[in-house]
Amino acid sequence: MNVAIVGATGYGGIQAVNLLKNNKNYKISYLGGNKSSGSKWSENFPFINLKSDILIEEISVERISDKANVALLCLPNGISSTLTRSLLEKGIKVIDLSADYRYKSLEQWKRVYSSEAIKYKRDDDDLCKEAVYGLPEIYNKEISKGRLIACPGCYPTSALIPLTPLLSQGIIDNEGIVIDSKSGTSGGGREPNQKLLFAECGEGLSAYGLINHRHTSEIEQIASFIAGNDIELLFTPHLIPMTRGMHSTIYGRLRDPGLTSSDCRILLENFYRNYSNIKVLPVDSYPSTKWVRNTNEIHISVKVDSRNGRIIILSVIDNLIKGQTGQAIQNLNLISGLPINNGLEMVNNYP
Amino acid sequence: MNVAIVGATGYGGIQAVNLLKNNKNYKISYLGGNKSSGSKWSENFPFINLKSDILIEEISVERISDKANVALLCLPNGISSTLTRSLLEKGIKVIDLSADYRYKSLEQWKRVYSSEAIKYKRDDDDLCKEAVYGLPEIYNKEISKGRLIACPGCYPTSALIPLTPLLSQGIIDNEGIVIDSKSGTSGGGREPNQKLLFAECGEGLSAYGLINHRHTSEIEQIASFIAGNDIELLFTPHLIPMTRGMHSTIYGRLRDPGLTSSDCRILLENFYRNYSNIKVLPVDSYPSTKWVRNTNEIHISVKVDSRNGRIIILSVIDNLIKGQTGQAIQNLNLISGLPINNGLEMVNNYP
Amino acid sequence: MNVAIVGATGYGGIQAVNLLKNNKNYKISYLGGNKSSGSKWSENFPFINLKSDILIEEISVERISDKANVALLCLPNGISSTLTRSLLEKGIKVIDLSADYRYKSLEQWKRVYSSEAIKYKRDDDDLCKEAVYGLPEIYNKEISKGRLIACPGCYPTSALIPLTPLLSQGIIDNEGIVIDSKSGTSGGGREPNQKLLFAECGEGLSAYGLINHRHTSEIEQIASFIAGNDIELLFTPHLIPMTRGMHSTIYGRLRDPGLTSSDCRILLENFYRNYSNIKVLPVDSYPSTKWVRNTNEIHISVKVDSRNGRIIILSVIDNLIKGQTGQAIQNLNLISGLPINNGLEMVNNYP
Amino acid sequence: MNVAIVGATGYGGIQAVNLLKNNKNYKISYLGGNKSSGSKWSENFPFINLKSDILIEEISVERISDKANVALLCLPNGISSTLTRSLLEKGIKVIDLSADYRYKSLEQWKRVYSSEAIKYKRDDDDLCKEAVYGLPEIYNKEISKGRLIACPGCYPTSALIPLTPLLSQGIIDNEGIVIDSKSGTSGGGREPNQKLLFAECGEGLSAYGLINHRHTSEIEQIASFIAGNDIELLFTPHLIPMTRGMHSTIYGRLRDPGLTSSDCRILLENFYRNYSNIKVLPVDSYPSTKWVRNTNEIHISVKVDSRNGRIIILSVIDNLIKGQTGQAIQNLNLISGLPINNGLEMVNNYP
Repeated sequence: MNVAIVGATGYGGIQAVNLLKNNKNYKISYLGGNKSSGSKWSENFPFINLKSDILIEEISVERISDKANVALLCLPNGISSTLTRSLLEKGIKVIDLSADYRYKSLEQWKRVYSSEAIKYKRDDDDLCKEAVYGLPEIYNKEISKGRLIACPGCYPTSALIPLTPLLSQGIIDNEGIVIDSKSGTSGGGREPNQKLLFAECGEGLSAYGLINHRHTSEIEQIASFIAGNDIELLFTPHLIPMTRGMHSTIYGRLRDPGLTSSDCRILLENFYRNYSNIKVLPVDSYPSTKWVRNTNEIHISVKVDSRNGRIIILSVIDNLIKGQTGQAIQNLNLISGLPINNGLEMVNNYP
Repeated sequence: MNVAIVGATGYGGIQAVNLLKNNKNYKISYLGGNKSSGSKWSENFPFINLKSDILIEEISVERISDKANVALLCLPNGISSTLTRSLLEKGIKVIDLSADYRYKSLEQWKRVYSSEAIKYKRDDDDLCKEAVYGLPEIYNKEISKGRLIACPGCYPTSALIPLTPLLSQGIIDNEGIVIDSKSGTSGGGREPNQKLLFAECGEGLSAYGLINHRHTSEIEQIASFIAGNDIELLFTPHLIPMTRGMHSTIYGRLRDPGLTSSDCRILLENFYRNYSNIKVLPVDSYPSTKWVRNTNEIHISVKVDSRNGRIIILSVIDNLIKGQTGQAIQNLNLISGLPINNGLEMVNNYP
Repeated sequence: MNVAIVGATGYGGIQAVNLLKNNKNYKISYLGGNKSSGSKWSENFPFINLKSDILIEEISVERISDKANVALLCLPNGISSTLTRSLLEKGIKVIDLSADYRYKSLEQWKRVYSSEAIKYKRDDDDLCKEAVYGLPEIYNKEISKGRLIACPGCYPTSALIPLTPLLSQGIIDNEGIVIDSKSGTSGGGREPNQKLLFAECGEGLSAYGLINHRHTSEIEQIASFIAGNDIELLFTPHLIPMTRGMHSTIYGRLRDPGLTSSDCRILLENFYRNYSNIKVLPVDSYPSTKWVRNTNEIHISVKVDSRNGRIIILSVIDNLIKGQTGQAIQNLNLISGLPINNGLEMVNNYP
Repeated sequence: MNVAIVGATGYGGIQAVNLLKNNKNYKISYLGGNKSSGSKWSENFPFINLKSDILIEEISVERISDKANVALLCLPNGISSTLTRSLLEKGIKVIDLSADYRYKSLEQWKRVYSSEAIKYKRDDDDLCKEAVYGLPEIYNKEISKGRLIACPGCYPTSALIPLTPLLSQGIIDNEGIVIDSKSGTSGGGREPNQKLLFAECGEGLSAYGLINHRHTSEIEQIASFIAGNDIELLFTPHLIPMTRGMHSTIYGRLRDPGLTSSDCRILLENFYRNYSNIKVLPVDSYPSTKWVRNTNEIHISVKVDSRNGRIIILSVIDNLIKGQTGQAIQNLNLISGLPINNGLEMVNNYP
């Protein structure tokens, strides 16, 4: 399987190189990037060895389709939509890490990503409808058969995996869900950005995007599909002075207030029993983001407040792996007919 | 006013020295500490200049009462209770930074601080009843007349200041309040502790004390007083890889879902209009803990989700100043008849 | 004294506001900045209170000279030279924080700052000759009488203060001096910069600018003046994952190998006995940058290897205060006839 | 090959588990630790999966020799010496990560490790003489035949690898070498320690152990062997606010001042051409510790100051891998007759 990594010098692309370069099932056959095009990989990243040190090329549908069977698009929002139809027409499967195909409705994308919608004139509502939401432990069958996979955002991943069993089985109320999430700064990307300077965001913590962060609508869309009716929730992201890692603290109300922490733990564990990368921790064991750093795992812990039938769910992921490129590789495995976690058994290398 | 700082070499004590050493209304007349007793301040802290470099002495009620009019007790939980009655009997006013007198009921303290209750046999329920809860913007009158002030915990401070106007005026439901708090590691103190090693807690984030953190009951006690009826809430603290700073993200439901962010902002601003250290930010301005670092300020921001009548409140403080010793100095000012923020107009020195 | 802060929204400018805003001897009468011009200070920095919330204006010699007696130029290299002659002609004293007037020879500036020299065509060699190098503990008299002060770079400050007594008295060899310096990331400024992103420079350390960092020639120029003959040395800067702080480890050879650590300590202490902000530590006490953070102090420690007559000197400063704006304020005090450390007695607020 | 990891819950032991657990050539057959003995590995480290979740046992020569062929001793200085002779007598090979067998002379160990020498009465000078210094790229042949390997300290590793080619070939003067090293805080171990608290060492940098750090004598011993005559040098370690990583900046004088940076680069590259984990970077490429984090690589860069014939050498390693356990595994590979870097081809997972 020849893989094109498009947008190779951002954090998504670098992570893709790191995850694929020693995987015998795949060959990195194309690296695309506009700013760095014409230079060798090793000139940009002398510390990440690629057995065959290839050129980073300008992004071109022709070149991608000449060299690869599948394209991982690690590009800013909006740009993927300019490449995807042509790639699909040439028979290239597309795994898109941006938000371009996460909504079933192009109209909703235009509303939520309004600034991108001005820049990129899209009329590919059919592809929005066709695209499969790439949450592989939930939509594995659909992904296996798909040719266009829209990988979830990091926040939605961290929230939807723990919420899905509870929503799909009606364990918690649809109303009043609170998702309080914390992310390392690599989630903001590798482009120069004053807010993400060490001197600005080090030794400090702040919330952002209250109420109307773009991931709110993404979480709500999928949570509504899963629950079978419309869900509105509160989602608040926070920027944390660390490079990698994401922690979501989720609050809900149990429909049956008699359920214990242990009951809920078992329910989650059973739901994901076939997925070794999803680990439901013992009750009263609370994970650090450091436990899953450099891995494709998600660790989940649940705790019930028996006084009032509330449930708190904690989840941790590495925002660049399970929250981004590791999940994309799971999707790549599924569309390639390989085991879902092929090449993703990593060591977190604590501390 | 001669002030004894008891427990001078922990973070509370160091901060007290730093806040008082240039204040002309107070003289640091006694420094107490057991491990470091017999050594000079400058031997322990060559980088914190004290005009008169005094000895750190063993902690003794005799010596404190010989040298001071008021004692700031910056000690581990339980120890304050062994000194307080004797100090009060000698006419020394006591400002206690521990949890020993935060509950009106000694029984509740014994339940919540059960391990300390085994070690320290207390029968000073009368003092628990007498002690004033040292939240100076709420209880300023009572504090002015008090002789024993129980300073709040850092988490309760960050939560109760923004919640008080909303609870006392019935703006939000008593039920279903969620407080998701994030604290820098200095909140865990200066004693050697594996969990607080840089190599352990750097580049990671985790929650702890779910449901039953000791500050849950402290917040609930005061919130219930203020609301006029019993409040049960969810409080989750998280450890953040930064030294100073605390951020609370508070979620509640408006009783009148027609209220806007701006309405709630004005309400909070009016409530605290006489307190220059409480700053209610413009709507859509979200504070970083860095904005209040090294100051005694609290910054608050409110945002309403008009879809469902939920309110999100953000608050930030410096956990060692407004969350601990700065607040104690406000209380010291009040019992000394000085302006509440005397000596506390600090510069945050960004970045 | 009315002070113009030109370049108010970079770290130099922000620090200048923070250092001057509560100083009764000075009034901040003008804030200049191009990108932020037209907005109020409080819109940019809601967390830094200015009693009179003034507009940030476009940078203009007219406006500066209308409103101020002295200008602090906190601007990128090259731009100061476009303003300075006009300001001086209007009788405004200039304290320049850039490198524009640090060399006695414009030719040398053009060689070292070659990229800026292409952009800014300078012919103000007379001003280069006139400018006083603003190291206030060394050149206090010259500064007092100057009208154009060229403030030293942060690295030169951290190296020259400890080296001056040793070089001027011939204690160490001129040959073979090694300066190994470590700086926090705020030294790289506030402009967006990929290398200074938290995700790039957090949890990592690297050297840069070996042999030919621009500060090498600046240090050599002043060290040669002080020693009375030409000095060539090795200077290596390193970028450290912290916001503020600079540490220089300096290696030299004693001319008299019989000198002890204590001898050298006393010599340094005597040399600077009139400068309370220069603290020579006891032998075997090694400072952390944290000891001087948020202050204008420099702490120095010396240690002799008696086996081979080598000396190691450690110095720590806050790169934005003693290494930049605090030192500029010392110069401002001197040209204003005020005590050198007026308004600079700050509390480091450990930890 | 059955491997005992003795001292399994410190950073050395954890790293050993992480490096060996997926290596098919080795089986972790024994985990020893005193504090945690009796508990399962998974109870201590729920986030580090061991296929067979074994008990951590009390440290016992009997049990080690029953279960393993080779012992990795990841223990505090002094303790290894109490186990080693017995283990060797039972035919167990010993790879010691402590300093106990790094000196050829027990007397020197007693002088340098004087506090440990009081606690542990040693008379195993014969074993000190027998032990092989485990720098595998230098002493590979000796290690292959050894039964007791004394793994180098992290600082000596980072200094000796770049210095060896230059000293053995007489490229640089023996006199006047300066090694200025910077280490992440995990080098201080996992025991609770006030100085290593996040709140103490975060956002700060300091030197320690000037002149007489224990690693000075270790570096001098080996450097003298390699150069063929006695070397005295200056070594200064610094504590850096990061978890992993070590950077050494080494200064020396070229014997032939006509050598260029490129000449020296080629010389180093040739010397280590058979070692893929030693990477000599292009001239003017300066490594970050982040480039080698989570790997067993060392990256080296050289730069000559042609004005004065000085050379600056930079080296970076991961202090817990190439600086500690990764190097121990190289030694384990050599004594097992396996390729030196077997199981050590790791991905650094930037950023």
